[in-house]
Amino acid sequence: MHQLRKPYLLFLADAQLKSDAKTAFGLRDWCAADVLGEWSLPAATVSLGLTRMAPAEAAQQGAGSIVIGVAAVGGVLPDHWLPALAAALDAGMDVVSGQHSRLTSFPSLVQAAQRNGARLIDVRHSDKTFQPGTGHKRTGQRVLTVGTDCALGKKYTALALTTALQAQGAKATFRATGQTGVMIAGEGVAIDAVISDFVAGAAEQLSPDNTPDHWDVIEGQGALFHPAYAGVTLGLLHGSQPDALVLCHDPARDTIEGYPDFPIPDLQEAINRYVEAGRLTNRAVRCVGISINSSSLSDAEWASYAARISVELKLPVVDPMRGGVDAIAKALLAP
Amino acid sequence: MHQLRKPYLLFLADAQLKSDAKTAFGLRDWCAADVLGEWSLPAATVSLGLTRMAPAEAAQQGAGSIVIGVAAVGGVLPDHWLPALAAALDAGMDVVSGQHSRLTSFPSLVQAAQRNGARLIDVRHSDKTFQPGTGHKRTGQRVLTVGTDCALGKKYTALALTTALQAQGAKATFRATGQTGVMIAGEGVAIDAVISDFVAGAAEQLSPDNTPDHWDVIEGQGALFHPAYAGVTLGLLHGSQPDALVLCHDPARDTIEGYPDFPIPDLQEAINRYVEAGRLTNRAVRCVGISINSSSLSDAEWASYAARISVELKLPVVDPMRGGVDAIAKALLAP
Repeated sequence: MHQLRKPYLLFLADAQLKSDAKTAFGLRDWCAADVLGEWSLPAATVSLGLTRMAPAEAAQQGAGSIVIGVAAVGGVLPDHWLPALAAALDAGMDVVSGQHSRLTSFPSLVQAAQRNGARLIDVRHSDKTFQPGTGHKRTGQRVLTVGTDCALGKKYTALALTTALQAQGAKATFRATGQTGVMIAGEGVAIDAVISDFVAGAAEQLSPDNTPDHWDVIEGQGALFHPAYAGVTLGLLHGSQPDALVLCHDPARDTIEGYPDFPIPDLQEAINRYVEAGRLTNRAVRCVGISINSSSLSDAEWASYAARISVELKLPVVDPMRGGVDAIAKALLAP
Repeated sequence: MHQLRKPYLLFLADAQLKSDAKTAFGLRDWCAADVLGEWSLPAATVSLGLTRMAPAEAAQQGAGSIVIGVAAVGGVLPDHWLPALAAALDAGMDVVSGQHSRLTSFPSLVQAAQRNGARLIDVRHSDKTFQPGTGHKRTGQRVLTVGTDCALGKKYTALALTTALQAQGAKATFRATGQTGVMIAGEGVAIDAVISDFVAGAAEQLSPDNTPDHWDVIEGQGALFHPAYAGVTLGLLHGSQPDALVLCHDPARDTIEGYPDFPIPDLQEAINRYVEAGRLTNRAVRCVGISINSSSLSDAEWASYAARISVELKLPVVDPMRGGVDAIAKALLAP
């Protein structure tokens, strides 16, 4: 489990495109209270609209970590990003990265971290060891977002559902299983980086025993219908022991993204397969709603689509970006 | 993928119990032609009945590796085992270990390996990186052993089936996915040690394109019904793209070993679940037979049990230890 030190200074490096700074925008939007400001190199043209703050100043104001909020080309940090990161370490802050290349592969950063007692945290990697899953039932309630594919809103839905549950007066905690999620939550585990034998065990550890009225809202990963990642999805599902599932779907996709030979299943079939698999570790698991990424639909198309599948599946159908997820929060809290 | 240097010298250390030397006995039985002899410490009372040979002598006779054939208590090599291993390195041999602790964690072994250009190979660990699965259909034919639980004969069945296919004149290759299997085959990947994101991709790489009449016989791992390891099983199944499945089962078990709250499913249900999951990457997958670990049954009980489930499931039912697996090999080769 990663444990990050907040608040954050968001580092934009020399970003020219907003799309390269998705992580930074996500953190600004989803954990605004934990973000002190932004910092970038002179060549940057992207801004988050936050207070500009050099690392030393951010540290003085209490920043715990500088977070690399942009994707490096090829996943490898360019050398000219390193001085800003070393400055943050020298100011006593941790450096947090979601790049493929490890921060610890840069001797200058390792030395700066050592001389300041600061940490280099690669949230894409998992250096912690976990125990195998036990299958023991845990107290408290859990909802897991699952999907008909990768990258269609499972994290976003889980974050929105956490907020909606809290707004309705419920106790709820977002449980992060991917790198951006871990940065937002400040803790969690990048489940796809865990040794396969320990995925279910890591998922168990991620949502420990809690009070009976507490909801863990667990960020899903992958899809049972994905030829590369279904094993990750199944291990996370089994270890999470969810009481409830929310199925995430993008109606613009006919096949798994990047895998044109693999069709997206029918929604009822997808629900059946997730419930069948989830019953192994929680006999009472049920699907409580559908979260749609409807960005490809007009308002009229969305209204008609949502109405149709809600009737077909007898479940609330929402888009977190278009009206929110309150209907699913209500379904979870219904006695 | 691990690639080991044969032939082997099997190291029994100071084994007192045959059960501690399961790996050594398995190698003696399953790759006898690749084993030159055995070596042990003075305190050992277990012998494989092979020629005793000091490392230097084994190297002179062409041994490529010394293989640790016994389980160390707690998975950690005791210091008094190290001189024999260093002697093997000094004679130019590799050291192969399936222990939890890594050979590379012992400085004396690392130094001995370096000064001799020899290798320290931890088959339980996977230092190689893999690509994610592609889902691309490969040429050649594949059969995967799957199970109602762990540790009930999936490796043994795959080895026996490889031999039986070859005896019937077919081209067949055993594909190892666990540490003992890798030692027997001299190559393969410990699939449960792979980062979860790459399990399906590693399985794809393990059984590459082959001639249309060639069978890869792939060693299965875990079980879809296991609360800790089902994700590993599913990733291996998807990446293997098997044309055929052999279901392995032990009728003496009612629940998953070590997980008394998790029942072993009905055999037809188990077949259905494996075929349903396997269809994602091979629409034509079918179950061709049942391999039973019948050690708990008398001869009469076994005959009656095998006859009954063969009629129920309309499939050949074998025990590799009791009559062999020819019936399943025939089913695979039937036109």
